[in-house]
Amino acid sequence: MTADVFQAHREPLELALKAALPEDHSPLSASARYVMGWEDENGHPSEAGGKRLRPLATCHIGTLLGAPLERVLPGAVAIELIHNFSLVHDEIQDEDATRHGRPTLWARLGTAQAINVGDLLFARAFTALSVSSDKELTGAFTTVLTGAVERMIRGQWSDLEFEQRTDVSADEYLEMVAGKTGALLGACGAIAALAAGRDRATVDAFQRWGVSIGLAFQAQDDYLGIWGDSAETGKSNTNDIARRKKSLPLLLGLAEPGTRDVILRAFANEQPEELEVVAVAAALADAGIGDRSLSMARAFQAEAESLLQAVPGEAARTGLLSMGRLLVDRER
Amino acid sequence: MTADVFQAHREPLELALKAALPEDHSPLSASARYVMGWEDENGHPSEAGGKRLRPLATCHIGTLLGAPLERVLPGAVAIELIHNFSLVHDEIQDEDATRHGRPTLWARLGTAQAINVGDLLFARAFTALSVSSDKELTGAFTTVLTGAVERMIRGQWSDLEFEQRTDVSADEYLEMVAGKTGALLGACGAIAALAAGRDRATVDAFQRWGVSIGLAFQAQDDYLGIWGDSAETGKSNTNDIARRKKSLPLLLGLAEPGTRDVILRAFANEQPEELEVVAVAAALADAGIGDRSLSMARAFQAEAESLLQAVPGEAARTGLLSMGRLLVDRER
Repeated sequence: MTADVFQAHREPLELALKAALPEDHSPLSASARYVMGWEDENGHPSEAGGKRLRPLATCHIGTLLGAPLERVLPGAVAIELIHNFSLVHDEIQDEDATRHGRPTLWARLGTAQAINVGDLLFARAFTALSVSSDKELTGAFTTVLTGAVERMIRGQWSDLEFEQRTDVSADEYLEMVAGKTGALLGACGAIAALAAGRDRATVDAFQRWGVSIGLAFQAQDDYLGIWGDSAETGKSNTNDIARRKKSLPLLLGLAEPGTRDVILRAFANEQPEELEVVAVAAALADAGIGDRSLSMARAFQAEAESLLQAVPGEAARTGLLSMGRLLVDRER
Repeated sequence: MTADVFQAHREPLELALKAALPEDHSPLSASARYVMGWEDENGHPSEAGGKRLRPLATCHIGTLLGAPLERVLPGAVAIELIHNFSLVHDEIQDEDATRHGRPTLWARLGTAQAINVGDLLFARAFTALSVSSDKELTGAFTTVLTGAVERMIRGQWSDLEFEQRTDVSADEYLEMVAGKTGALLGACGAIAALAAGRDRATVDAFQRWGVSIGLAFQAQDDYLGIWGDSAETGKSNTNDIARRKKSLPLLLGLAEPGTRDVILRAFANEQPEELEVVAVAAALADAGIGDRSLSMARAFQAEAESLLQAVPGEAARTGLLSMGRLLVDRER
């Protein structure tokens, strides 16, 4: 995902993001900058800002469709702030103590203040939208973003609920993913198309494109979580089976009598043993569930690509297709 | 606060609030309606919606200033949703298990899902603003609300931080109150004035009016928390001294050598004894701190009222003055 296609807008994006957050020295503001990756735990400059996948995709799509960058930027900034707000709250909800090697905010400050920092980033997303002088566009961006946030929250609700359940179907799982991962990517597409002044139907198509890209990414990521390089031997603790993660292949496997028992036996231990992990991966592969997962990923990607067929201009269409593939193939 | 002046808009407000929230049967949506007081824990109809102080004040001010109700309503609705989002997150942060006799959301659903419900209410506040066809007005409302939310979050940050400190000054405390309690009341005033099409200076004056009303309320509430009727004898467990609450009189008392020791002695126990509570209240009164707290409350109220002098029209001015007093005197 460090492909050149995203580099063109990285600098103006980062400047706009910095301008969208408070610069004062209060611990609240410093914590927000920590989340964004600009400062370390001691307030010293840092470059841990991550790939900025969503806002850079938004800028790229928007400009490919002919929008001036300054019309896209407020929406792109708001999307990245929403993404970071959701990370802060998710980390609390999932009790994740580290992310990309850094302590998460709640692990540093406790849950109560981390909730506040998430709320600040959420509020600042809407402040960022309001810098645009085109109030019609701001209104359209707001509608897209509030809708996406709500679907994202519903996805997160389901994800947490699924942890308590043993009967989650693959369909329910994919609906959850469409919210938790797809909704904000859908907003990227919709906001880019709105900034480019496209009609309602095109905006909707780009929104659905983003959701499909999100589903394709997750289905492929779930496949790689079992059969990807580092997990090939079952020795890696990043293997989803070893972590008892109810990913797509596992849910498909739980629905089949032939594989269900192997999975349940392995999952009976809090930390499945290496031999069991290998046995589950083999049983799923034998039952064709690896292939099924991968073809589902490809079907979602094909669905996304079919939505781009109506985009006029060979160059724009090619650019969009290759960007969609980069988004699906981003490193895990 | 059930004064007639607020009744005129109660019904349209409640209808607009209901229209602003999802009606589906998902547990997330039902939880949002529980927070708003429309449903009990089993999803049965309930009337626990509270006084709707802020949005009714907004409607009342707006219409007194000549705004059509439909121009004020989206802002009033958003303010009440913001208020409820902040309650849900505050209850988690303060670990409050009940509010007005009902279990709080996190006590029912756990912290993780309660965070989601707060986030949903937050998002819906901005959705509610966008129903207005006047996009300029929506933009102005958004700017006011995001600013108020940020000051509210900063106030909440300080409030949590103060719990860990023993050297909080009365000035720091009042700055915290201006954010935590004042900012949203300031938004009520500003949104009402914006809806009535008033100029920047008037909007600012109404914003400052709300902050001063918030400070007057809190200073008076803190006075009543020690010397109010039910607490007079020091026997009530609602007495702020018994709860070791660092309210305004306590902070003023901690800054005086003559009263500091009495307070510290009482606060050394996790639950100060009745005799100690009485002794602290007496020492504070003897040092004139009760009177000082009350005159600070009156000074904030006078400040608020002075901001109304420029409002044209005798009837509007009188209406605003009496409403300000109702807001300060609302029952505890």
